[in-house]
Amino acid sequence: MGAENSLVNQFNAAGELTHLLTLEGLPKEQILHILDTAKQFVSVTDPAREVKKVPLLRGRSVFNLFFENSTRTRTTFEIAAKRLSADVINLDISTSSTAKGESLLDTIDNLVAMQADIFVVRHSVSRAPIEIANHVPAHVHVVNAGDGSHQHPTQGLLDMYTMRHFKHNFKGLKVAIVGDIVHSRVAKSNIHALTTLGCEDIRAIGPESLLPSDLDMLGVKVFHSMEEGLKDVDVVMTLRIQKERMEAGQVPEGDAFFQQYGLTPTRLALAKSDAIVMHPGPMNRGVEIDSAVADGPQSVILNQVTFGIAVRMAVMSIVAGN
Amino acid sequence: MGAENSLVNQFNAAGELTHLLTLEGLPKEQILHILDTAKQFVSVTDPAREVKKVPLLRGRSVFNLFFENSTRTRTTFEIAAKRLSADVINLDISTSSTAKGESLLDTIDNLVAMQADIFVVRHSVSRAPIEIANHVPAHVHVVNAGDGSHQHPTQGLLDMYTMRHFKHNFKGLKVAIVGDIVHSRVAKSNIHALTTLGCEDIRAIGPESLLPSDLDMLGVKVFHSMEEGLKDVDVVMTLRIQKERMEAGQVPEGDAFFQQYGLTPTRLALAKSDAIVMHPGPMNRGVEIDSAVADGPQSVILNQVTFGIAVRMAVMSIVAGN
Amino acid sequence: MGAENSLVNQFNAAGELTHLLTLEGLPKEQILHILDTAKQFVSVTDPAREVKKVPLLRGRSVFNLFFENSTRTRTTFEIAAKRLSADVINLDISTSSTAKGESLLDTIDNLVAMQADIFVVRHSVSRAPIEIANHVPAHVHVVNAGDGSHQHPTQGLLDMYTMRHFKHNFKGLKVAIVGDIVHSRVAKSNIHALTTLGCEDIRAIGPESLLPSDLDMLGVKVFHSMEEGLKDVDVVMTLRIQKERMEAGQVPEGDAFFQQYGLTPTRLALAKSDAIVMHPGPMNRGVEIDSAVADGPQSVILNQVTFGIAVRMAVMSIVAGN
Repeated sequence: MGAENSLVNQFNAAGELTHLLTLEGLPKEQILHILDTAKQFVSVTDPAREVKKVPLLRGRSVFNLFFENSTRTRTTFEIAAKRLSADVINLDISTSSTAKGESLLDTIDNLVAMQADIFVVRHSVSRAPIEIANHVPAHVHVVNAGDGSHQHPTQGLLDMYTMRHFKHNFKGLKVAIVGDIVHSRVAKSNIHALTTLGCEDIRAIGPESLLPSDLDMLGVKVFHSMEEGLKDVDVVMTLRIQKERMEAGQVPEGDAFFQQYGLTPTRLALAKSDAIVMHPGPMNRGVEIDSAVADGPQSVILNQVTFGIAVRMAVMSIVAGN
Repeated sequence: MGAENSLVNQFNAAGELTHLLTLEGLPKEQILHILDTAKQFVSVTDPAREVKKVPLLRGRSVFNLFFENSTRTRTTFEIAAKRLSADVINLDISTSSTAKGESLLDTIDNLVAMQADIFVVRHSVSRAPIEIANHVPAHVHVVNAGDGSHQHPTQGLLDMYTMRHFKHNFKGLKVAIVGDIVHSRVAKSNIHALTTLGCEDIRAIGPESLLPSDLDMLGVKVFHSMEEGLKDVDVVMTLRIQKERMEAGQVPEGDAFFQQYGLTPTRLALAKSDAIVMHPGPMNRGVEIDSAVADGPQSVILNQVTFGIAVRMAVMSIVAGN
Repeated sequence: MGAENSLVNQFNAAGELTHLLTLEGLPKEQILHILDTAKQFVSVTDPAREVKKVPLLRGRSVFNLFFENSTRTRTTFEIAAKRLSADVINLDISTSSTAKGESLLDTIDNLVAMQADIFVVRHSVSRAPIEIANHVPAHVHVVNAGDGSHQHPTQGLLDMYTMRHFKHNFKGLKVAIVGDIVHSRVAKSNIHALTTLGCEDIRAIGPESLLPSDLDMLGVKVFHSMEEGLKDVDVVMTLRIQKERMEAGQVPEGDAFFQQYGLTPTRLALAKSDAIVMHPGPMNRGVEIDSAVADGPQSVILNQVTFGIAVRMAVMSIVAGN
């Protein structure tokens, strides 16, 4: 989980962000610049505004390359790009030329030749977006929309936006990440960003089988009990149990997981009284989270979605401007 | 078919139309306002005009939520929204997050958090769009694009537009609806609207098995013979035989249906000489309608399609303006 | 391959191009007008330009009707139409009303009634776009995006653009088309256009089983050996082996095809030293072309893609303007 991104270069010759591939190693000032830019877009897209768009990417072509199906993430990027006035092309790659035997990079070369400006890439293979970014010419930008169990940087950034919005400072913040961390690119992106932003108390809570082995090295404290791990935290982030990525023995049986790790009102009461509850969605109610918590006053789960549009607008406008 | 919509509220606190869910109970002046607004859009979209669009919904986000596949209806809403300059997002829900165990209302909450302005909803379950409308905040608008065997209000409105266009008055109008009425949300929407607009001679023609039992209560005259039912009518509306919604015993065998209820030139001759022929599409030629009639001089079936775009533009611009 | 298009009429009463259905019989001045128009669009879509679009088709509706799946070609037309500022509707016809028993021409009638301006049609049945063009009213335009094994005129035009760009003159040009010609609508469109533009040395290279029988009649020289056919040519166009269109006996076994007809550096050396290498894509590397050639300095395969966008913009703007 640590040094695997040593070959990632998301900066151009002038040191500007030209791709967004991973939050590992992304400097603090870059993260803050994205969050500050996103803040402006939150007001642009306010429901009270009649015209919820800006002409920043007018005439630019954004290609949504989803090698792995994800309607939710694809939709957030599509709406973000349209609110920047870009032309958006959705490509369902599973039914496309790759079926006729064309390689990934041949497909990319073709789309670059069509004068693509931005590729938003979701792929089931870790590091595929990095491979694409290393291949394209300098005027083309790649945004990682989730690659295997590697990274999901825009999700990490929208989580940072959400924590800053409600908690203001990362210094002194106590953040607990709960559940299926070993399969979660979201958890990895969060841990990297939180560390960079100065958070010194990051906790991982879950059964042995769902935690990666290198959490220690990343400075993350490990807990196998909700009762211990949630104590006094400011932020509780529950993750979706990703049965589709688990091997046979890993899938929790019946409501065994909920019994031990489900976020219930009783358990949430162990956190600070003003703690916020986050979840990247889609939620499995009654599996990792109780409905009373999901819909309760401490839940900021839908704010995450709103901030996610603004963060994606910020990322696309920043990389395309560099 | 009667009182099932008692809980529908498609009006906001100021008494303005904020959703379009059903034509049952929709006041006459609201219907006429929609038809009058649509009339302007018919001229906007005239093939002779070079720019067939208006900026009324610029910067607004229209989400086409099709839980049941319908390329035809989805296309009419997509083109209508684009001609209002809205950003349109098509969601094929069958392949989306719901597959990962997310509930309908969680999906809706997420899309609201993405600052959706209008949901166009097609669902195989009756009243699903009503459930969504009851759930969303006041600035979000829901348009029912067909729910189960319940309602298809924009189809009903485009049918009213078509009858008014060709026949001018509903007073004194004789309208025959033919065929598979029991499975037809189109028929229900038409009966409600015709009654509201003052039509006093509505006829249902079909075999016992394809007619609902409450037609009497709605003031609709029942006929089991084309020869009797078509006599002197101004409008003949044939419906598509919906085999996909029928149970085993209901599906007419061979051309038995056409023999008894198919709209042939001979039968059409029993109606008034200037009667118009309507069909909501897609047609089964040789099943419910003879090609000579479908393509004949009395057919206004393609006019219905054209008026349908204008009516959908009217509905979306009216609800979003309220 | 010759006289099958005798009934095609792609011109309106004023003699202007109103559809693009085939390159057979398309006059030289029409082809040159399209290529000259495309040249302007190449500069409009240059990556260095910030706004890569023009308002030529603003408010017009382009329907991509893909009865046969082709993400690549659909994408090129979608991006071309969007760069002309048109509203684009993608219709995946295999999942649409046709499944409910509606005929092709009923579907077309409905889309015309929705005020379509341009239909881009890909169909597995040869001449289907011609049937559609013969059916629609005068203000609607049809562009053939590939029909069966018949024609692929925009591909032929972008190939002409590419040859003119790099070789300037068709007079004296020697062009070799290699491989699976019998299944190739691309080859047919190229042969017609090259002949019209004055090219007098067109060669077909391939095994007996993959060459059509009427090449002689079209003035094309037949070679069964790369070594003989490639000698001194200016242009080598390799085609994709279309296994999906072949019958059992036709599919080359193992690397037998590559051994005899694969375009390798050694074989390319037989052509002129400044010969260009073309391929319509998607490529089967190691089947019809060696990677060293595909990615080598003589390859203009990706230029073809770029020019293809501009050519499609030219074709749509010209037919819609007439």
